[in-house]
Amino acid sequence: MAYERPAIQRMHGYTPGKQPANTETIKLNTNENPYPPSPAVFEVLKHVPADALRRYPEPLALEFRGVAAELHGVRPEQIVAANGGDELLRMAITTFVDPGRPIGVLSPSYSLYPVLAAIQDSPVVSVPATDDFGVPRGFAARMNDEGVNLTFLVNPHAPSGRLIPRDEIVAIARELKGVLFVDEAYIDFVEPSLRHDLLPLVDELDNILFLRTLSKGYSLAGLRYGYGIGSAGLIEPLLTKTRDSYNVDAIAQRVATAALRDQAHARDTWKRVREERPRLQSGLKQLGFQVPDSQSNFLLATVPEHAIAQDLQKQLEARGLLVRYFAEQRLDDCLRITIGTPEQNTRLLDELARLIRS
Amino acid sequence: MAYERPAIQRMHGYTPGKQPANTETIKLNTNENPYPPSPAVFEVLKHVPADALRRYPEPLALEFRGVAAELHGVRPEQIVAANGGDELLRMAITTFVDPGRPIGVLSPSYSLYPVLAAIQDSPVVSVPATDDFGVPRGFAARMNDEGVNLTFLVNPHAPSGRLIPRDEIVAIARELKGVLFVDEAYIDFVEPSLRHDLLPLVDELDNILFLRTLSKGYSLAGLRYGYGIGSAGLIEPLLTKTRDSYNVDAIAQRVATAALRDQAHARDTWKRVREERPRLQSGLKQLGFQVPDSQSNFLLATVPEHAIAQDLQKQLEARGLLVRYFAEQRLDDCLRITIGTPEQNTRLLDELARLIRS
Repeated sequence: MAYERPAIQRMHGYTPGKQPANTETIKLNTNENPYPPSPAVFEVLKHVPADALRRYPEPLALEFRGVAAELHGVRPEQIVAANGGDELLRMAITTFVDPGRPIGVLSPSYSLYPVLAAIQDSPVVSVPATDDFGVPRGFAARMNDEGVNLTFLVNPHAPSGRLIPRDEIVAIARELKGVLFVDEAYIDFVEPSLRHDLLPLVDELDNILFLRTLSKGYSLAGLRYGYGIGSAGLIEPLLTKTRDSYNVDAIAQRVATAALRDQAHARDTWKRVREERPRLQSGLKQLGFQVPDSQSNFLLATVPEHAIAQDLQKQLEARGLLVRYFAEQRLDDCLRITIGTPEQNTRLLDELARLIRS
Repeated sequence: MAYERPAIQRMHGYTPGKQPANTETIKLNTNENPYPPSPAVFEVLKHVPADALRRYPEPLALEFRGVAAELHGVRPEQIVAANGGDELLRMAITTFVDPGRPIGVLSPSYSLYPVLAAIQDSPVVSVPATDDFGVPRGFAARMNDEGVNLTFLVNPHAPSGRLIPRDEIVAIARELKGVLFVDEAYIDFVEPSLRHDLLPLVDELDNILFLRTLSKGYSLAGLRYGYGIGSAGLIEPLLTKTRDSYNVDAIAQRVATAALRDQAHARDTWKRVREERPRLQSGLKQLGFQVPDSQSNFLLATVPEHAIAQDLQKQLEARGLLVRYFAEQRLDDCLRITIGTPEQNTRLLDELARLIRS
């Protein structure tokens, strides 16, 4: 007999990208940072006190939130820590979306959103992105018309890497009657000369919630650590009501704090990824791929006309190179390729050259 | 403007027990194990590979589930790992309780249950325990009548420490139309001569879900690691649909696996706690407290007639000793006292003697 509720029976779970146990595989499929985390992280791990494990963790992640607040120029009560960015997505739905009410997304987008919506019995109002993966005119009005109280945007957009400019985000947030959730999972890889910093908006707009994660920018996908930044009024119910009471563990709090403090290390990895971005992009273009500009640590590459994306992905995998293929409209002729180390990117281009020309 | 939904505005968050930062305080308020975790845990922390942090964790916690399955004599597909037992509670509600439908509890019980119910818009069908904190006759029938699809029992019961015997659990599970969630957070401290082992039931009963945690028995409250054990059909939607896709991090998976493997260390701490249990109980009784027998790592002590529980709790706190006071019916003349080390227990009894006699 099935005891789970009908909505759960009907839904399909999220399919994560492949996470092979062996470390020889070149993983360019789940947008991890190709460089290791700060050495400070390993120092922390060597000195975790027994009492920190034996006792419950600090429930509010006070030290981490203090450090993050200082880094971003906001107040600690404008920050909530989460067991990975994914937990913040779920908490936001639980907090802002009545069961059965719709959530709003731009499509294509992060494929976890509809899964989380299904768990909340919520339909998804999905607005197609423009041809260049931008937000179309009328996006916010559509959400308002449909009674959406929580709208997700990934910025830079995934899987395209396109950056939505500040003014567009502001206009959407101002127009929306509900909450705008801006998933900035990849923000650390934006070209610094663009001076793209939207966090000061949390003091002006009470309905905008930013997601940050240590998974990519701080090379800590294995740690599961993200955080939300918003007005204190938006953060308060997440912090004091819908969050699991001890959602971030004692080790993770220490590691995340140390990683955030070592900005020099993190920024160096961002710079190295950014430096490879145009090289990988032009290498792919030379092979006949179409590759829009990306402000992220991945590229969305439309395969050359005679090639089949899924076949290429499988052939690469057989050669020990993972990239991401999405079996969905608008993406099924694309590969999403994480920017790796120079050696990894060269290896990928070499393999692709062989496959494309054969 | 408030953006959170009305149910969240109305509800109150969970109030965790005090978690002071200083380590001099004698913490007998949140049922932590007074002894440190296995030395193997610290070895693991010293050798976390950079790639384990940089990459996403194994999403299904395969190694941990294999070790846990072997330990408990079940199959890996009968186990799901969680970011602390609290996460499993929430996942169970999300999975088995339609929004707005009731959940069932014995009262008094773990005060997180009604908080999680409120988040799901669910009323709580609360059946009062018998005078000795047992499950009253007609408990399952009442749940069925009220349309409850998920019923929580803590066994040993919290905050009394009373053990519900196997046959009672079986009878309740058989009668219930929905799922019986048996929260075995404190099971490791049950007297071994009682041979209380309910886990084989998961092969007979498809509606029983057991919660285990490493917080107490393995001295890892700071780690946030729990797991569910049930029939494969009951575990499947938790494992593949409602769980956050990477809910337990790479460090936690390694640490939890190492801790579970070192049974000798854990069992030694359980024995030491059990050895102190009768001494603390009789010491409290000599001071005029009423203290029912407990199979847990805490005692529920009704204060002597002339004493006021909340005052005692505050006076103890002023002396650097934390115990738990619950401002609720049936418990407001009680203190819940975690069993500490022999020195901590002696110190507590000494302080209480002074306070009671003054």
